[in-house]
Amino acid sequence: MLGKHKVGACLPTFGSCADRFCLSGYGGGGGTMEEILDMASQVEALDGLELVSERHLTDDNIDHVKSLFSDRNLEICMVVPDLWGQQKWTKGGLASVDPKIRKEAVADVKKAMDRAAGVGCGYVDVWPGQDGFDYPFQADFTSAWKWLRDGIAECSAHRSDVRVLVEYKPKEPRTHCFVSTAAKTILLLQGIENVGCLIDFGHSMAAGENVAEAAALLSDYGYLDYFHLNDNYRLWDDDMMVASVNIPETLELVYWMKKLDYGGWLTLDVFPYREEKLPAAENCLAWMKALYDIVDRAGMERIENVVRGGDANEASRLVREMLTGDSPSQEKE
Amino acid sequence: MLGKHKVGACLPTFGSCADRFCLSGYGGGGGTMEEILDMASQVEALDGLELVSERHLTDDNIDHVKSLFSDRNLEICMVVPDLWGQQKWTKGGLASVDPKIRKEAVADVKKAMDRAAGVGCGYVDVWPGQDGFDYPFQADFTSAWKWLRDGIAECSAHRSDVRVLVEYKPKEPRTHCFVSTAAKTILLLQGIENVGCLIDFGHSMAAGENVAEAAALLSDYGYLDYFHLNDNYRLWDDDMMVASVNIPETLELVYWMKKLDYGGWLTLDVFPYREEKLPAAENCLAWMKALYDIVDRAGMERIENVVRGGDANEASRLVREMLTGDSPSQEKE
Amino acid sequence: MLGKHKVGACLPTFGSCADRFCLSGYGGGGGTMEEILDMASQVEALDGLELVSERHLTDDNIDHVKSLFSDRNLEICMVVPDLWGQQKWTKGGLASVDPKIRKEAVADVKKAMDRAAGVGCGYVDVWPGQDGFDYPFQADFTSAWKWLRDGIAECSAHRSDVRVLVEYKPKEPRTHCFVSTAAKTILLLQGIENVGCLIDFGHSMAAGENVAEAAALLSDYGYLDYFHLNDNYRLWDDDMMVASVNIPETLELVYWMKKLDYGGWLTLDVFPYREEKLPAAENCLAWMKALYDIVDRAGMERIENVVRGGDANEASRLVREMLTGDSPSQEKE
Amino acid sequence: MLGKHKVGACLPTFGSCADRFCLSGYGGGGGTMEEILDMASQVEALDGLELVSERHLTDDNIDHVKSLFSDRNLEICMVVPDLWGQQKWTKGGLASVDPKIRKEAVADVKKAMDRAAGVGCGYVDVWPGQDGFDYPFQADFTSAWKWLRDGIAECSAHRSDVRVLVEYKPKEPRTHCFVSTAAKTILLLQGIENVGCLIDFGHSMAAGENVAEAAALLSDYGYLDYFHLNDNYRLWDDDMMVASVNIPETLELVYWMKKLDYGGWLTLDVFPYREEKLPAAENCLAWMKALYDIVDRAGMERIENVVRGGDANEASRLVREMLTGDSPSQEKE
Repeated sequence: MLGKHKVGACLPTFGSCADRFCLSGYGGGGGTMEEILDMASQVEALDGLELVSERHLTDDNIDHVKSLFSDRNLEICMVVPDLWGQQKWTKGGLASVDPKIRKEAVADVKKAMDRAAGVGCGYVDVWPGQDGFDYPFQADFTSAWKWLRDGIAECSAHRSDVRVLVEYKPKEPRTHCFVSTAAKTILLLQGIENVGCLIDFGHSMAAGENVAEAAALLSDYGYLDYFHLNDNYRLWDDDMMVASVNIPETLELVYWMKKLDYGGWLTLDVFPYREEKLPAAENCLAWMKALYDIVDRAGMERIENVVRGGDANEASRLVREMLTGDSPSQEKE
Repeated sequence: MLGKHKVGACLPTFGSCADRFCLSGYGGGGGTMEEILDMASQVEALDGLELVSERHLTDDNIDHVKSLFSDRNLEICMVVPDLWGQQKWTKGGLASVDPKIRKEAVADVKKAMDRAAGVGCGYVDVWPGQDGFDYPFQADFTSAWKWLRDGIAECSAHRSDVRVLVEYKPKEPRTHCFVSTAAKTILLLQGIENVGCLIDFGHSMAAGENVAEAAALLSDYGYLDYFHLNDNYRLWDDDMMVASVNIPETLELVYWMKKLDYGGWLTLDVFPYREEKLPAAENCLAWMKALYDIVDRAGMERIENVVRGGDANEASRLVREMLTGDSPSQEKE
Repeated sequence: MLGKHKVGACLPTFGSCADRFCLSGYGGGGGTMEEILDMASQVEALDGLELVSERHLTDDNIDHVKSLFSDRNLEICMVVPDLWGQQKWTKGGLASVDPKIRKEAVADVKKAMDRAAGVGCGYVDVWPGQDGFDYPFQADFTSAWKWLRDGIAECSAHRSDVRVLVEYKPKEPRTHCFVSTAAKTILLLQGIENVGCLIDFGHSMAAGENVAEAAALLSDYGYLDYFHLNDNYRLWDDDMMVASVNIPETLELVYWMKKLDYGGWLTLDVFPYREEKLPAAENCLAWMKALYDIVDRAGMERIENVVRGGDANEASRLVREMLTGDSPSQEKE
Repeated sequence: MLGKHKVGACLPTFGSCADRFCLSGYGGGGGTMEEILDMASQVEALDGLELVSERHLTDDNIDHVKSLFSDRNLEICMVVPDLWGQQKWTKGGLASVDPKIRKEAVADVKKAMDRAAGVGCGYVDVWPGQDGFDYPFQADFTSAWKWLRDGIAECSAHRSDVRVLVEYKPKEPRTHCFVSTAAKTILLLQGIENVGCLIDFGHSMAAGENVAEAAALLSDYGYLDYFHLNDNYRLWDDDMMVASVNIPETLELVYWMKKLDYGGWLTLDVFPYREEKLPAAENCLAWMKALYDIVDRAGMERIENVVRGGDANEASRLVREMLTGDSPSQEKE
């Protein structure tokens, strides 16, 4: 737990992170789900883990997986239909030009929803990462958007006890993904029941967004459901440890989570390619805890006054005082 | 004219383009509106010019300006309320934290609408460039968004014969502008009557969008009203000559304009800082004409087949054949 | 052949391209070296392929590999020591903080040089992709640079019949690679004998360079030895097909290759993740041929005059006329 | 003073910052040099100001300017030849294709050197911001580079008591500036006497550099002479207040300044467009002081150990502990 939030992690956080140059992974992570669970259970604050449907969770292993988790006092905080890791999705899933593939994508999401219900998880994370295009003249944008909406609508109608969250990302693995920003996700979801948004810090940064602003917009429309936490250098989804690059904006997000009364999971989605996995997770959570403490110490009212004032000098002074602990009274002009 | 499109230009296209390092402007452009009109009238294909309300068009000079234009057989294709060039907008206009400034911004847009009606122009271009923020903790996103919506709604209700177009841009002059992407513009406009979107090629690129995709999305929602044409290196609004950097994506946009049945103005918004102004405008229009001719020669059906297929090799071959004139039959495998 | 240039390819051009989300690869490529060679030999213009030392070329299989190539009338145009694909390089190779790893990296480059000599190839491509850092405070820049220089110097002194080329790249797989730009590569190589630079179009673009400018700088210092061709959207090494995004800059590079009298290999380094491999290679080479033809048709003198003049209007007109075939005489002012 | 460093500022720090949309400036700054000096003298830590030759400092006003400064106990820390703000530099200065312009640029630098000597300042800052290109095919890179080198060499030979510093920047006002990175600056300066480099934090970030790494490289070659401090969002020279966005990298730079034994000026180069100028300068200096204190508290040895280890977890923990004041002992594994 971190304050009122349950704390989760995606499996790569404890896995043997690979990239296109080192397909074996850089090592040090768990291989089997059990190994990863054992590692994860050593992180004190951690309450749950995400699972990928079909890869980790199948119709046949539901009971086994449930006991693996309950034995370690962990929850399954998210079930993720695999819409990106198999060759059948090479040219897209929900928005494939091939109707059979689109149908299969919807079916796989539904299966993931059933499995989520089976393990007591109320969400699936639909990340249409392969739905997009790489080259000019490669996509019929109008049809793709319609297919995405139809697919999401069909999935979300499948059962009402599992909410369909959509995770946006501007690029990677495609050079252009259709569901690229918070605003576009809202347009995608409008008029569909039982849906929401999963906002990933790094995806939002890579989309050129201020993450807190994206969260506020999603909250306005009732779609702020779930957070993936990490960090990057703004141009790519580097999946780095939390607050390792962008401290002021991560701090600003923490303030806005409180202001928007976000009460859901805080889930790590980091790829510690070259790092020992346990300390990496602990570093992330220590930063999050530090940022929450900083906001608590400053007090919502003091921050609110600065935010409402719109003055950059006040904002700059606030961040410095919050981070370095300088007393506000000493510097007033 | 360019095909069925009327062709316009913003005044900086023929002006003495300044930047923050050379405030006098790099020279070579027209000083007065008359001088600019005289230059513009030498560009054969040009049908109209945009004017900035208050700067070029006031309550007192409407008749004079009308005759300046009619004498040269030019139209006023857009009236732009000045929401960025005066010190009163330093910390924002429609979304200023100061209610007096917000009121003034709305009033200035209404005045611009009246003047547009007075000169027979059916549009105003609301570009809220100063509405945004520069630093973390400097903006109350929720209030700002509400103020923007309220402001646009009040303006658009002022009179129904002038349509309020909103122009989005991700940054500059603020490091973050609130109305930053096509999707966010749609959210801003939803539920308001008599509004639409002005899409600027370079703003869209700088927002990480594929411009044709943004146009298709806007068209889907009924907001594809007007185009600003130019080019850049993707990261900043360089306001360069059309197609000087990004040829395939400009060509893709031309195809989509036809497919989406866009029939409105094609207006240059270039800043030829160091260039002679007339040849720069002519270069832009020559590229646009060349790209239209290329699409016509290829034929919509052939292009459509490639776009629908979603195959990158076909897309790449199509672009090469269209641009270099190679015959498709010679290369079929 | 393409004009006077021999034409090569890296193996991923015909391989089953994987990324971190689809580790199996997206399919359609060759699995074994033989399969890839068979595919490659179907591309008419192709003269050679690059091999990765240890992965494809070992002390034991040199004769076998030579005959595989000679049977298909192909050359081995480059031997690449594997300094990135094994777990031992997780925290760097030539610039690792561990002296044993640095020693091993140098040894592996030397082995690759011996194998290159064994197969009649005069180059190795040292790409220190794992030498860099991801986080602030993670690198001792001064030591790393010294280690890199010492390592390159030791390798290049190993034997004079194989030239050590260094390939720069600003990021990926590290968020920051030490050898990041053409200018930094020159600094790295200065004072060392028997070395040069391999310039990869996409790496150069991702580094914010104009590729032709980087080539001219390298040529000035005597280090312009070898080209990798591909394309991307400027921010990441997308390894796309040649000229699919950036046509004017690729055309400008072709002109400068001629002007700088570059006579070496033109080698494809594309990752056609979702594309059929043969047509992708052919598309690349067709674009390169088209651009060479375009430069030939325009004539070096005409281009030279524009380049020397420094006028953007002339440059823009030149590109348009070269690409669309418009006659220059018709548009002169 | 800040520790052993004298503290300076560029004049826009206290000026009425304009951009291309608001040419009058956003207001609140000083107009005349006297007004700016009066403002600057209220910033306690400030020791000096930069002046632009010809604009602020002419052959005729040297004595007057000296007394303006000495009256306020301020130094002139830099004299900047104006190579960017006049129409004669529209197409470049030191690297103009016009030999008369090149000659004039050299002459203006020499005049600035004489004036610097006249006011007891040992540096001029040569920022060749207009030397570059905007469009493909617009520049003869080889000639431009030669002209730049020749020009710098001629200037630096003019007199040995004023050192010619070159300030690099990747873009703006040109879309591509020739002198774009630290490594390229070193190449430019090699073999020329009496030269060095001025490194601007934001220029370095916009060039994709880690600023501390750039500083280490410049120091290695003996060219680390002077710092401009500010911050930005990595993609553009936003000239924001110090540490307002990138805290870990600014902190890393402070550590490296100490490690490299940099003893020169710390000069603010911020454009507080919409901010009150005095508090903005004070915010910058308060952050710099806080970061120096943080490094002092942590101790060079402790930081050195982490930097030498190359472990991201240690680096991440170090930054968090330094900034939040957590005790290292409590978290050791």
